[in-house]
Amino acid sequence: MAATTRLRSLNIDNINPHVKEAKYAVRGEIASRAENYRAKLAGRNVKGVPDKLPFDTVISANIGNPQQLDQKPLTFFRQVLSLLEYPKLLDSPDVLRNALGYEQDVIDRAQWLLHEAHSVGAYSHSQGVPAIRDSVAKFIERRDGHPADPQDIFLTAGASAGVNALMTVLCSNPKTGVLVPIPQYPLYTATLSLLGAQCVPYYLNESSNWGMDMNSVKEAIKKAKDEGIDVRAMVIINPGNPTGASLPAKDIRNVIEFAAEEKLVIMADEVYQTNVFKGSFSSFKKGLRDLQKEVPEKFDNIELVSTHSISKGMVGECGHRGGYFELIGFDPEVVAEIYKFVSISLCPPVIGQCLVELMVNPPKKGDASYELYDKEYSAIFKGLHERATALYDAFQKMEGVEISEPQGSMYLFPTIKLPEKAIQAAKKENRQADEFYCLRLLDATGICVVPGSGFGQAPGTLHFRTTFLAPGTEWVDRITSFHKDFMNEFR
Amino acid sequence: MAATTRLRSLNIDNINPHVKEAKYAVRGEIASRAENYRAKLAGRNVKGVPDKLPFDTVISANIGNPQQLDQKPLTFFRQVLSLLEYPKLLDSPDVLRNALGYEQDVIDRAQWLLHEAHSVGAYSHSQGVPAIRDSVAKFIERRDGHPADPQDIFLTAGASAGVNALMTVLCSNPKTGVLVPIPQYPLYTATLSLLGAQCVPYYLNESSNWGMDMNSVKEAIKKAKDEGIDVRAMVIINPGNPTGASLPAKDIRNVIEFAAEEKLVIMADEVYQTNVFKGSFSSFKKGLRDLQKEVPEKFDNIELVSTHSISKGMVGECGHRGGYFELIGFDPEVVAEIYKFVSISLCPPVIGQCLVELMVNPPKKGDASYELYDKEYSAIFKGLHERATALYDAFQKMEGVEISEPQGSMYLFPTIKLPEKAIQAAKKENRQADEFYCLRLLDATGICVVPGSGFGQAPGTLHFRTTFLAPGTEWVDRITSFHKDFMNEFR
Repeated sequence: MAATTRLRSLNIDNINPHVKEAKYAVRGEIASRAENYRAKLAGRNVKGVPDKLPFDTVISANIGNPQQLDQKPLTFFRQVLSLLEYPKLLDSPDVLRNALGYEQDVIDRAQWLLHEAHSVGAYSHSQGVPAIRDSVAKFIERRDGHPADPQDIFLTAGASAGVNALMTVLCSNPKTGVLVPIPQYPLYTATLSLLGAQCVPYYLNESSNWGMDMNSVKEAIKKAKDEGIDVRAMVIINPGNPTGASLPAKDIRNVIEFAAEEKLVIMADEVYQTNVFKGSFSSFKKGLRDLQKEVPEKFDNIELVSTHSISKGMVGECGHRGGYFELIGFDPEVVAEIYKFVSISLCPPVIGQCLVELMVNPPKKGDASYELYDKEYSAIFKGLHERATALYDAFQKMEGVEISEPQGSMYLFPTIKLPEKAIQAAKKENRQADEFYCLRLLDATGICVVPGSGFGQAPGTLHFRTTFLAPGTEWVDRITSFHKDFMNEFR
Repeated sequence: MAATTRLRSLNIDNINPHVKEAKYAVRGEIASRAENYRAKLAGRNVKGVPDKLPFDTVISANIGNPQQLDQKPLTFFRQVLSLLEYPKLLDSPDVLRNALGYEQDVIDRAQWLLHEAHSVGAYSHSQGVPAIRDSVAKFIERRDGHPADPQDIFLTAGASAGVNALMTVLCSNPKTGVLVPIPQYPLYTATLSLLGAQCVPYYLNESSNWGMDMNSVKEAIKKAKDEGIDVRAMVIINPGNPTGASLPAKDIRNVIEFAAEEKLVIMADEVYQTNVFKGSFSSFKKGLRDLQKEVPEKFDNIELVSTHSISKGMVGECGHRGGYFELIGFDPEVVAEIYKFVSISLCPPVIGQCLVELMVNPPKKGDASYELYDKEYSAIFKGLHERATALYDAFQKMEGVEISEPQGSMYLFPTIKLPEKAIQAAKKENRQADEFYCLRLLDATGICVVPGSGFGQAPGTLHFRTTFLAPGTEWVDRITSFHKDFMNEFR
């Protein structure tokens, strides 16, 4: 503690204990160290970083951040945004078309969005620009084959902001509990810690490609109830993060039936809905509406919220902070409180809202921009699959590493079995063994991944999460070679 | 309550009570009704809105949202953003310069920002792009004549996000208190409600142009301490919102001396620092550094945070959600927790970060874009002052309305004295009298303002806050004529 602490108002012992409890490994110590290495390599002066590093680039495989690496934004999307930022360009349509390659549908879309949002520099409605919410509702209708109501859509500053709003309204006291899959994206546990509520963990089944295990869910809720926890909601990440697994329709029905029995809000994180290599994506909304048709009396009062984002998929526009959630079956008085809560932050970034519009309403077959859009979109999808496969192949060859075939999302989540000596060495440094391994990997290679303990893992198992977004195979070789040295050192 | 409540997990009686307690009048019932009127006039179908409205436009004078009304964005800023959104335009510099009027400094700035941020579609460092933080530090140095450290700067999604982060870390339990001026911007009370902490109100002095009244502050803190409240921080909004008042340097010193005695974190909301018509802006950072030079031992441990935003001033880019805060004198362990907290939301919108860069580092004399920038900037400033004066003149002529000369920010905050009959009519509707007046104003004219009770006001006084952003005088005439009718009806 700094020497002057007692002279200050705030110190580590008197600030909000919930903030201290929150853990967010995706941007934690290892990621922070990686940022320092990157700054050092860029010629900035950074305290505590050695003068010479044994690598010349930092690979941030800790976070799904496609455009920091190789992924290019979709041309149609960015052309529209350029016009939204500087509408005066629309006064020179000939220059746009002839000298700069803008198609007429780009110009039309920008004009329509400017008409609806007035200016991207103006606050919008707190729930988002009404016309964009209409587009989202139509997208959901096309996807699910069931109607959607624009009034139920809330545009957000990314999926994280939506989860924060929902969890804040939902968690009323320290005994409120939310079922969270393990492994999970640590936003969920961090948010519950911040709210002083209870994470009720349920384990996914690694041996069946990280599928749902309803027995594990039932055990978890029973144990929580026995401890006096008021379990109100269940988080499902589908396709999974960090696992990549897509739930089959049958698992979705099982979850909905369970939620109906236990009167749980279903929080479906569906941000990776287009990142699917194996199986196919089926939404919780579709599952619910299908069941409601079959047995209305049982499922009519289910509360479901589905989140989506512009940060993932082939869009990959993380830096623009955009997304939405759809509320299904919520009490109108509760919806009014959610609205009030989001209105305190005024509105989501309007450019991010416009990207939601483009994501849910991209060029269609026959549109002037379609061919290029389709080409770019398919190439990104193919590239992700190829990189995932290359990384998977490399992991398969590594000693003590077990991994299932890439299924989707942007991540691989291999199991690692480390020698006992490495586990002891980690203990000496007061670290978990997977954290120790990932720090060593970073220091030796400049590659930043996240230890499995940051997502949760079954006791006695070790993992790490890596994105497969970085281009080329050189960095994969760096991992392979580090891993060999590490195993030899601690064997 | 909906009939199905008992079948659902969530209802108004079991959700987070802190969310229910939070009030945010700027986007509350009146603003919501105004949005419905706007949607109706735009041809959308809205439940509960009469088919015929007695006005044909809605004027949103409830919120400082310049670009929703008349204010145009600054050309230099938006030209740079258009290139950031579609960097391929940089491949055609001749077209940009010759056919589209982009100056070379626009191109240079965009190229530099792309180099530093890589892509505006990529997540940045959680604290913001390092090079932009460098620019902010240099801006603060020029403004204050004292050094600033980029490591102390956190870029944010608008000032609101910064306030939320700081308050969350600061409030550790239900007895934590924060001094908040009355009247205030309701973000502060709403955030404290959400955190379940205590607002400790101190009254500004309306009779001295809403200046600081240290006696009122001292009374407030004494009363709070007597009630067992642990007062940790003091919010100052300078220039004031909703009052517009700029604090003289003497008042700033008084506040700092008081904060040193009471060991309070100073939270200086300085988002209106360029919206000053009367007096001049002097930052808390400058006041603190000046005092520290004079009497170091007394002020060396003061904790100060200053927030700024791209939403206000002549920039007015609300929809892009950008801003920053600077932390001075905080314990490094506390700073680390603030960092962790903001990292859970990943990063502020990168385009908003780039607007912070442009705000703190606009074209300088001699730069190719300077002349146009200066012309646009001055015209916006002059326009705001003229509108404020016109509105002030109109209010001065209205029966029962008292108002001091416009001083700054984007608001006027007149006192209204309503007839007893009106106060009784409000009571019958279970409303505060100022709220009753503002709802009547909206229903009759389409003009949306915020009742003084939304900001806090001395007992027995009534006010409303209106922006002076709307162009022309026609809407002012609507208010004058409504007011006359209202007074006649209830006299």
